[in-house]
Parts: sequence; C-alpha cells; structure tokens
Amino acid sequence: MFNPEEFIENSLKEIRKAVGDSRVISACSGGVDSTVATYLVHKAVGKQLLAVFVDDGLRREGEPEFVVKTLKRLGIKTKFIDAKEEFFAVFKGKTDAEEKRKAFREKFYSTLGKAAKEEKIAFIVQGTIKADVIETVQGIKSQHNVLSQIGINPERYGYKIIEPLRELFKPDVRKVARSLKLPPEISERMPFPGPALSLRVLGEVTPNKTAIVRKATQIVEEETQQLGTFQNFAVLHNDKATGIKNGKRLYGNIITVRIVESEDAVTAKAKQVPPEILKKISTRITQEIPSVVRCLYDLTDKPPATIEFE
Amino acid sequence: MFNPEEFIENSLKEIRKAVGDSRVISACSGGVDSTVATYLVHKAVGKQLLAVFVDDGLRREGEPEFVVKTLKRLGIKTKFIDAKEEFFAVFKGKTDAEEKRKAFREKFYSTLGKAAKEEKIAFIVQGTIKADVIETVQGIKSQHNVLSQIGINPERYGYKIIEPLRELFKPDVRKVARSLKLPPEISERMPFPGPALSLRVLGEVTPNKTAIVRKATQIVEEETQQLGTFQNFAVLHNDKATGIKNGKRLYGNIITVRIVESEDAVTAKAKQVPPEILKKISTRITQEIPSVVRCLYDLTDKPPATIEFE
Repeated sequence: MFNPEEFIENSLKEIRKAVGDSRVISACSGGVDSTVATYLVHKAVGKQLLAVFVDDGLRREGEPEFVVKTLKRLGIKTKFIDAKEEFFAVFKGKTDAEEKRKAFREKFYSTLGKAAKEEKIAFIVQGTIKADVIETVQGIKSQHNVLSQIGINPERYGYKIIEPLRELFKPDVRKVARSLKLPPEISERMPFPGPALSLRVLGEVTPNKTAIVRKATQIVEEETQQLGTFQNFAVLHNDKATGIKNGKRLYGNIITVRIVESEDAVTAKAKQVPPEILKKISTRITQEIPSVVRCLYDLTDKPPATIEFE
Repeated sequence: MFNPEEFIENSLKEIRKAVGDSRVISACSGGVDSTVATYLVHKAVGKQLLAVFVDDGLRREGEPEFVVKTLKRLGIKTKFIDAKEEFFAVFKGKTDAEEKRKAFREKFYSTLGKAAKEEKIAFIVQGTIKADVIETVQGIKSQHNVLSQIGINPERYGYKIIEPLRELFKPDVRKVARSLKLPPEISERMPFPGPALSLRVLGEVTPNKTAIVRKATQIVEEETQQLGTFQNFAVLHNDKATGIKNGKRLYGNIITVRIVESEDAVTAKAKQVPPEILKKISTRITQEIPSVVRCLYDLTDKPPATIEFE
C-alpha cells in the first residue's frame, strides 16, 4: 500500500541531498505531475527554486493566468516566459506526429536551458511519472520529459535532471498532491500532455488552428465536468469536409471529441457518454465555431488507439 | 398524393416520344434511382436500350456482380465496362473535394460517351432526382448527374439526356420501384452516391485506400442492417493518428462511421445508435483492418454537415 506521507518525507531528503546548495529551475505547466514535482522541490530547498511557466501558445483558455496565480499563492518564486511566437515558428511545415513532438521538445528544452543559464541554475525538475517511462521504453511514443531513453543528454542543454515522481503512477501522484494539501484544481486536475494543444491539432500547428481547438476544448470541458472521467478533450483534424453554413456550402473543419476512463493512462476505455450530452457538445461546437461543420466522437479504447491522437 | 401507376404510364409515353427510333444508353449503378430510370426506359423502348455498368473501382464489396446479375434477370441488355485503372489515374494528386467530384464526373461521362459512340447511341438516361437538382442549384454540391446546372453541355460528349425521375423525391422513387415490381434489394436499397467510395476516401483516392474503406463499409453495413436507417457508411480519413498494434506504436488510419435518418436527403439526423452496436463496429474495424487504429462516430446533423464528407 502506497504511503504518501512516507514518500514525501523520503523525497524531500533525496532532493536536498541531490541539489545541495545549487539552484533549481522547474517548468510548471499546472498539471498535477509538474505542480507536485515543483512543490516538493519548493518544500525541500525553498528559495533555491525558480519555477517558470513557459507560454508556448498551446495552452488551454485561461490556463497561463491560472497557473501563475496558483504558483504565487503557494509561495513559489515564479517567472513567466512568453515564447508563443518561437514555438509556432518551429512547427512551420511539420505535419508528422513524431516530428512535431520532437520540435516541441527541442524548443522547450532550449527555452528552459536559456532561462537556466541566465539564472545560473544547474538542475531542472521534471514531472516524469512511471507511465511516461514505460511507454517511451516500449516505443509507443516519445514522452517529451523522458530524456535519457530517447538519447538526449540533458547536460547538452546545460543542466542535470531531478525527477521526484518517476516511480509513481498517476493515482499515487494525486495522493501525494492531496497529502501536500494542494488545491483540488491541482490534485484532481485532468491530465494534459506536455506538448499541449499541439498534439490536438493534426497536421501543421498554426495560431489559427490552435485557437479553434482551444475553443472546442473549452466547450467539451464545460459540458463534461460532471462525468468525472479521466480525460475529456477536442482534436482538430487537418482533413476538411463539406457542410452547410447559412444555407451555403462550406468546406470546413472537423472536430473529434475524446472522453476516456482510465486509472493510469496505460490503458483506457472510450466513455459511453449519454447521447444528450454528445448532442449538446456537437451543437455548441458547430454553432460557436464558424469554420467547424462536423463533430465526431472517438469510440476507440487504448489499445488499439492511444489516448491522444499524436 | 403521388400516384406511381399514373407516373409510370405518363413516363413511358414521354420516353417513347422523346426517343423515337433512336438507341439509348443507361449507366446503371444498381442504386434505386438509376435502376428505376433504366427499367422505365427498358419498358418504354425495349431493345433500343443498352444498359452499361461502369466498374470504376469505387464500388462496394460484391456490388459489380450484383448489379450485372440483377439487370440480366430483369431482361435488360447489359454491357460491363472495366475502367478501374482509368479512374484511379484521374484521381492522382487530387485532394480537394470539388476537384475529385469534377475528375470523377469527367471520366464518367467520357467513358459513357465513348461507349455511346461505339454503339451509335444518341441518348443517355440519367437517374437524377429532385434533391440532386435543388442542391446543385443552391451551390451545396455539384451533383455529378445534373449537367446543365453546372455548365456542362451533354452534347459535347455526343448525346442528349433523358431524366425520367427529375421531378421526384426519393420516397416517390421507391414507390415507383415497388409498383414496377423491382426486387426489394433495389426498391429499398440504401442511397449510394454516384462517385461512390471516392467521396469516402478523404484526400487522394488510391486503390489501397479504397480497399480499406470498402472493408470498413462492409462491416458497418453488416452491423447496422437491422437499424432501418436511411444511410450507413464508413469514411477513411487522410489524417493519421497514433495507436498501438501488437504492442508497438503504429501511426495508422482513422475511420469515421456515419449513420443518418432522413426522408429525402435534403436534411438528415445523426442516428443515436445503441452503444453495443457502435462498440461492435469499432472493435471489428480496428481488429479486421490492420492499418486502422481509430474509429469515430459522426454526431452531426445535416445541416450543418452534409450526409457525405465530400
């Protein structure tokens, strides 16, 4: 039986031992993994930690403001880095899922490395959890924060890595979050991938396509809060389809809604959602987003699908 | 109230008057519209009619054999034209929905025109119905068999057009079919578009992609026969998505299932299908088609979507 108090106690000791007097940087996305990892380091070494929020232009509606506010409330020194234009620049012309993940990862670590160098920081904190490690080793995807397995030497970017959660599965991370008394918006927060909305814009990632999927994501989250499912989100296809808007033909966009039940993200079931909720979502998405003419629902479990599309 | 017997009687007179002693060609796809139109002309002018089945490589599983057998059983002189390679050649490099429809249409009419010339035939029969005319005029799509509205002069292809059903909506066409004692596989046949599976392969149409959507279509039809819905089919996306097959990552294909209720195809409702049927369909599609990792369900009514994706 996992004991979160014992885990926290051991973790704080190990972090102090590893870090010594050095300074530490932690890129916190606001997800439960990165926030718990950041907060553990904050508890362990206090002022030696600088949290950064990298605004890559790929976050959900209102998320940058929420994360920065939460970190400040927790008493963590926080820096906001606006890197939106730089991230969209690296996605230009890239359509393959792995190429996009790689482009995101490289830009993410070079941005973080630059901040670490400016602040003379030697360590970075990663919210890597067990499922990330397993899937990267199995070759199912290259998780952006499992560097060694994919042949990246973090010292190339100028720092060493601390991964306090790499032995935990998601449910245990939430137990640690609750034990640390993090607010429920964090401890119960729906998983959201590191490369964020870039995985949910099929084909090339552009500001316009990201804005469409951001709006669709907001609608899906609003209409499915009460379901209590593991992950609920929207995906914008690169394919287009015919539809009719204002009585005229429109070769428009396609959105897929994905709602899954899962314990640990290693396997997942497509949720059987009440039809009136799906109807409401598809009506809102096609009415509130002018370019969208079709709304689909993903019926596939993991395996044979993955949770995310990319 | 529509009277099918009266319609048939008037129609036969009009066809005889228009055609005189000339010979007539009719491309019959096996759909209710083109089969009723063909059979009416057969009843009107008998041996002056030559039916042709153009195998464009885009038909459903077993369909070419079924149509040719049915026409022969009805006593109609029938010619089979194998044009599979020619059709796939014109789709090469075409990804836009309207470009694909146009490419299909031109190849279809040049194939038919060539056959008509060889047989010294002056008239062709079209199964155009009222909904085709309305949508073409409204600019929602360019229906492949409404030539004059889209600026095509059929005489350019070397013949004149007869459209016996152009004043009827689909339910009345079925009444005429029943009154003509056509077999129920025809009179109750699910609508299927002229450009066939080419509309259901998003992006470039290739033999391999067509084979995938043909197999998925067969599974959807087998599992939804008992629903009694207006149209049930599968669409192959051009986008790909990640999945897991045999424990390994696969960047694979996406299939959407579309099941709609409609009277006349002018408006339609996405069917609320029992979840166990959708589950069975998605499981079969991802298990029986090796390249497919995801199966989606289209939630959208017409409008704002159309029934077909292209």
